[in-house]
Amino acid sequence: MHEQFNLIIEILGTISFAMSGSFAAMQKRLDPFGVLIIAFVTSVGGGTVRDLLLDVPVFWMTDMMTCSLIFFTCLFSMIFKSIEKNFKVTLFIFDSFGLGLFTIIGIQKGLTAGLHPLICLTLGTITGCFGGIIRDILLNRIPLIFRKEIYATACIVGGGIFLLMSKFTGLSYTLVQIFTIILIVTIRTLAVKYHWRIPKFYGYENNDEM
Amino acid sequence: MHEQFNLIIEILGTISFAMSGSFAAMQKRLDPFGVLIIAFVTSVGGGTVRDLLLDVPVFWMTDMMTCSLIFFTCLFSMIFKSIEKNFKVTLFIFDSFGLGLFTIIGIQKGLTAGLHPLICLTLGTITGCFGGIIRDILLNRIPLIFRKEIYATACIVGGGIFLLMSKFTGLSYTLVQIFTIILIVTIRTLAVKYHWRIPKFYGYENNDEM
Amino acid sequence: MHEQFNLIIEILGTISFAMSGSFAAMQKRLDPFGVLIIAFVTSVGGGTVRDLLLDVPVFWMTDMMTCSLIFFTCLFSMIFKSIEKNFKVTLFIFDSFGLGLFTIIGIQKGLTAGLHPLICLTLGTITGCFGGIIRDILLNRIPLIFRKEIYATACIVGGGIFLLMSKFTGLSYTLVQIFTIILIVTIRTLAVKYHWRIPKFYGYENNDEM
Repeated sequence: MHEQFNLIIEILGTISFAMSGSFAAMQKRLDPFGVLIIAFVTSVGGGTVRDLLLDVPVFWMTDMMTCSLIFFTCLFSMIFKSIEKNFKVTLFIFDSFGLGLFTIIGIQKGLTAGLHPLICLTLGTITGCFGGIIRDILLNRIPLIFRKEIYATACIVGGGIFLLMSKFTGLSYTLVQIFTIILIVTIRTLAVKYHWRIPKFYGYENNDEM
Repeated sequence: MHEQFNLIIEILGTISFAMSGSFAAMQKRLDPFGVLIIAFVTSVGGGTVRDLLLDVPVFWMTDMMTCSLIFFTCLFSMIFKSIEKNFKVTLFIFDSFGLGLFTIIGIQKGLTAGLHPLICLTLGTITGCFGGIIRDILLNRIPLIFRKEIYATACIVGGGIFLLMSKFTGLSYTLVQIFTIILIVTIRTLAVKYHWRIPKFYGYENNDEM
Repeated sequence: MHEQFNLIIEILGTISFAMSGSFAAMQKRLDPFGVLIIAFVTSVGGGTVRDLLLDVPVFWMTDMMTCSLIFFTCLFSMIFKSIEKNFKVTLFIFDSFGLGLFTIIGIQKGLTAGLHPLICLTLGTITGCFGGIIRDILLNRIPLIFRKEIYATACIVGGGIFLLMSKFTGLSYTLVQIFTIILIVTIRTLAVKYHWRIPKFYGYENNDEM
């Protein structure tokens, strides 16, 4: 049952990020093949880097599920987009859910490989954030992760709580997963809604060189 | 004989992309070492990502042929550039040939690894397109692949036809290779010459955030 | 004793690049978690790509030293920054030392794997330069490596001299290492101080397309 729940998480995360990538690409007016490539990269980017780092077979190479999911999600997004123009909120929710889902998957893969919890947290952050970073670089946008929103922070805080809860509480693993995913989505949603900012305790400088 | 033909394809593709990288870097006024690095990255980028994904030894690490080819191509480009100023058409042809040649190599490596044809097509697209994407990101250009030209599309369509022809026709493998490479180059050339665009069946939006 | 010296080089290089990444990120006004991520990527980026290419376990995954070093360096940078505003020279020195130290480590890892000296030089260049390139791409800066300064050149020249000296002179390995690292830092410092430029022997063009 635990395996099945993980599969559901992976499917939902793949769909979420494929949608987020498709919409970002369509907003940049790419042609359908460009949209497909961006959807693919956004969806598998983080997990691919994670699997390369762990030196395990890259997850989307051996079964067709991920690729098919991305293809049909992308197709659906393009068709849906022509009907519905204002899709901001839904898009934001998909991106947040993708972040939460993939962070947890990344941490679990690290734990399975027997790595130190902090390395697992790093892997979770990479899995959750990297797809979106590559998407933004390819679309020539300043990676939003580093600027406006509490993005990586939601990921790191949520992942840390997941590690603590799964180690020190007697709660079922699946319950901890669900709780953490909801937590990450909630943190990010509240952060955007109420314009939360993390305080910077270092001064500013305007010069940009180094 | 089949092995020899594959080697010729790889040599021509390496030279093509090294030229394309050198010229793009010279147009951005990089110093000679910068030009060499961009030529190198453009030429080996796609194949390196493919080999990392397949978890096979990275092709340019074990023999000196690729590195030597890139070095001398780069040197030749720099010398030639000082004589001949207008090199646009030749550069375009080199880039197109590189695309066609590397797509086929990528698909073949995937087939050799026993992967699903659609995964092989993805690998072919990565091998063909990734070097140019990295080149454009490093040179701070919007990756052309996602905007103006039928680039990835030529790659995906050509690769798809390669897979179908090598499976369902009785033609010799080498013949199918030559045909597909010419097809990819032709599609791209005609697309640029006659300003082909793939129709977008989704609406536009001007807001850029997500 | 040789092992211990290598460990010292690695620690100093990690700290140098973590500082360089932290300061670059703070100048772009990222929040503390963003600063940490940039410091991490700058510090481990080059070595990670090197280890993936060599297909050896990624160095920061198995022990906690690197991650701890980066965390505390980043914390120290943020605290220090609030006190001292003008830190340019120190930052420049850190970046140069990181470059020298990591280039040598990269070459050594290649030699250990039994690769051709020129491939080792390539690996050294990747180890030294790649972290800074990723940092600049993520921060949406034009990678400085390709423009203003004699950066990759210092790396390639210094690495080449390291290979020649360790092969053809009877000097102790540690001595050659120290000499080369100082050489790379000196080349870069003099280049920036006296505005050295590598002559371009190819003409200019202003058109940016390809």
